[in-house]
Amino acid sequence: MADELNNTSRRAFLKGGAAAVVGTAAGAASAGTPDPLITEVQDWASFTGEGVDETPYGLPIEFESDVVRRNVPWLTADPISSINFTPIHALDGTITPQGCAFERHHSGAIELKKDDYRLMINGLVDQPLVFTYEDLERFPRENHVYFCECAANTGMEWAGAQLNGVQFTHGMIHNMEYSGISLRALLNEAGLGAAGDLADKWVYVEGADASSNGRSIPMEKALDDVLVAFKANGEALRKEHGYPVRLVVPGWEGNMWIKWLRRIEVTDAAVESREETSKYTDVMEDGTARKWTWEMDAKSVITSPSPQMPIKHGHGPLVISGLAWSGHGRITRVDVSKDGGKSWETARLGTTQGDSKALTRFYLDTDWQGEDWLLQARAMDETGYVQPTKDQLREVRGENSIYHNNCIQTWYLNAKGEAENVEVS
Amino acid sequence: MADELNNTSRRAFLKGGAAAVVGTAAGAASAGTPDPLITEVQDWASFTGEGVDETPYGLPIEFESDVVRRNVPWLTADPISSINFTPIHALDGTITPQGCAFERHHSGAIELKKDDYRLMINGLVDQPLVFTYEDLERFPRENHVYFCECAANTGMEWAGAQLNGVQFTHGMIHNMEYSGISLRALLNEAGLGAAGDLADKWVYVEGADASSNGRSIPMEKALDDVLVAFKANGEALRKEHGYPVRLVVPGWEGNMWIKWLRRIEVTDAAVESREETSKYTDVMEDGTARKWTWEMDAKSVITSPSPQMPIKHGHGPLVISGLAWSGHGRITRVDVSKDGGKSWETARLGTTQGDSKALTRFYLDTDWQGEDWLLQARAMDETGYVQPTKDQLREVRGENSIYHNNCIQTWYLNAKGEAENVEVS
Repeated sequence: MADELNNTSRRAFLKGGAAAVVGTAAGAASAGTPDPLITEVQDWASFTGEGVDETPYGLPIEFESDVVRRNVPWLTADPISSINFTPIHALDGTITPQGCAFERHHSGAIELKKDDYRLMINGLVDQPLVFTYEDLERFPRENHVYFCECAANTGMEWAGAQLNGVQFTHGMIHNMEYSGISLRALLNEAGLGAAGDLADKWVYVEGADASSNGRSIPMEKALDDVLVAFKANGEALRKEHGYPVRLVVPGWEGNMWIKWLRRIEVTDAAVESREETSKYTDVMEDGTARKWTWEMDAKSVITSPSPQMPIKHGHGPLVISGLAWSGHGRITRVDVSKDGGKSWETARLGTTQGDSKALTRFYLDTDWQGEDWLLQARAMDETGYVQPTKDQLREVRGENSIYHNNCIQTWYLNAKGEAENVEVS
Repeated sequence: MADELNNTSRRAFLKGGAAAVVGTAAGAASAGTPDPLITEVQDWASFTGEGVDETPYGLPIEFESDVVRRNVPWLTADPISSINFTPIHALDGTITPQGCAFERHHSGAIELKKDDYRLMINGLVDQPLVFTYEDLERFPRENHVYFCECAANTGMEWAGAQLNGVQFTHGMIHNMEYSGISLRALLNEAGLGAAGDLADKWVYVEGADASSNGRSIPMEKALDDVLVAFKANGEALRKEHGYPVRLVVPGWEGNMWIKWLRRIEVTDAAVESREETSKYTDVMEDGTARKWTWEMDAKSVITSPSPQMPIKHGHGPLVISGLAWSGHGRITRVDVSKDGGKSWETARLGTTQGDSKALTRFYLDTDWQGEDWLLQARAMDETGYVQPTKDQLREVRGENSIYHNNCIQTWYLNAKGEAENVEVS
């Protein structure tokens, strides 16, 4: 033990750590040099800092200014009908702060005051009703953490390894604690007697924005776990996430999570709107389109190391970290491969699971000695579903799809610790 | 049923709702008047909104500009050694966004870059060590949601009902998902062989700011669930919460959650620093001071209705909402009284409990017909502890204390739906 501790160049190899002995600079390269950050009193210990009156609402510190949503201008014709991406490469844990949670709009984010907000329920109900925001606050409330993933997340990757960065390949996802009321309670308030047999009924939901983004939801789901939500992570929804009220459709594609929710119509058939026919359907290998693919299959991705998160420290202990999720329920296991899927190690799930259909953080605490790795993660959920390889998915789906690409992602890690988006077969 | 539905003036009395029949304005007063928000196309449905390129990091919508931290200038001599308060009256769910999570500083919030960050472990260890930020990232990480409550929360209320607003009486609390490494792992890296019998050993922890805010923590707690945390709610800690690294001491008073953590010393006795002798001890009725009162006892408070959150809707369905927490573990039950503690109804716990020592949201779905109420909440935790009344607490503690006031709070609700901070005996 004493030998190891007296040999500073070996500390980087000790299990779990790479610290310097006190009095020497951190990092083996400068071992033996006094570290002024330890030996000299610094300004921040000599002078007082900012008072509690300066930031009523705080923002991230300036040094984190790169941890932001980013859009890709060439993806769509106009930023009002586009996407920006959550910086998942730089986040840890599971909660996504609203400030950097991805946006997807069809006609831009609108401003709608609570006082101007109305929600109509009509169609096959006993009594059509209009709710104000205040009305909604009088119904029993629930709180649940759910992930929201755009059906097009990873959609550019069908044709090959296109985008270099997990923020861009997998960043159309966020995970927040929603406060709201059950859609079931509102439907029951309007009365479903007029709808008759509920087994073949639907609700058509639309937003107050110009696109309206109407979608049909089977009544069974509408009466199950769908929320009419006011708040995310404790505070009001942000403008870009549907302030003051959005729909939360746990486990199902984000396009159905209607923002600025204005109308819920009980219908006897799906409306077959633009958003569920020409869009948000999956073109198969043979050219036919598969519809009603609402549920997001189990998926996972390594967020670090990744193209935006190279290994900057030396050889030795390395934490591989990533996210896993499933629209079917809880994640039960995540495996990590370093050789492109030939062999697998089981990762550690790094969160106390509360709600189902929420992001799960996984870690593999490992050791890296400069090897070339083909890094992959593979998620399994409580239904027994196993995340497929890209080849397996293409066998069924071809390469003409946009949506619902939940295949295993590969990062090639080189000897410098840099990672690149690649394909393996 | 048809009679009820045709009588719009009765809808406010229907279980769970107060909605208007379609075509009439919301609210009984204007029943029968066409509602232009329903009958006319609005600007937000005619024009496109904001694009995804406009806010890389988003802030709350302008209409929520009152949901912010607030300080009380007369509380302390200077805002660099003061407090601001979480707007818990306006939040729901359990997660506190970092942007409005309370601050308490002893010498202001300092700016400390990751590259300039060093953490020393010294004292009774086998090998004193200095860790860079990058070193810390190489240890196995954990994620847990924990509340952080200042020991002085509700401290102004010992002498009577002083502050009118739950933000000010109970807002020195926040609840976030922390990502970090266990303090145990760092202590083991330095080696605790030199410390001998650990049962009577301590760690002394201090920050990099001018106050240093040093506190002693018994080794048993240090080796239990204490985290050295980098992130809160997924992203980097904010400057005002200790960027880049703070200590998280689950269930224990916020003063021990050292921000800008710079040093951990293993000692054979408590240091008896200023922060644990002249401050953060409890002056009892007889003038003696009780020390080592680290754990936060079970506590709850109604956040709505409350002085800042009057009832604005009419009579009928009302959701009473609040928060409960305990440093001993999980909240098992919360009761609500409308008559100042003479009778109690059991509230509904509105969250899926994951981690222990985290905030719990409770609701009582009830009906209000303009009665005068003396509203109270009473929390119980998994150890069987029951939150005391103010009288019960004063019998033991007198009125000279500042810290650890976890007594039952009373709001007087009048016929207009306004609430006021009062005392009952």
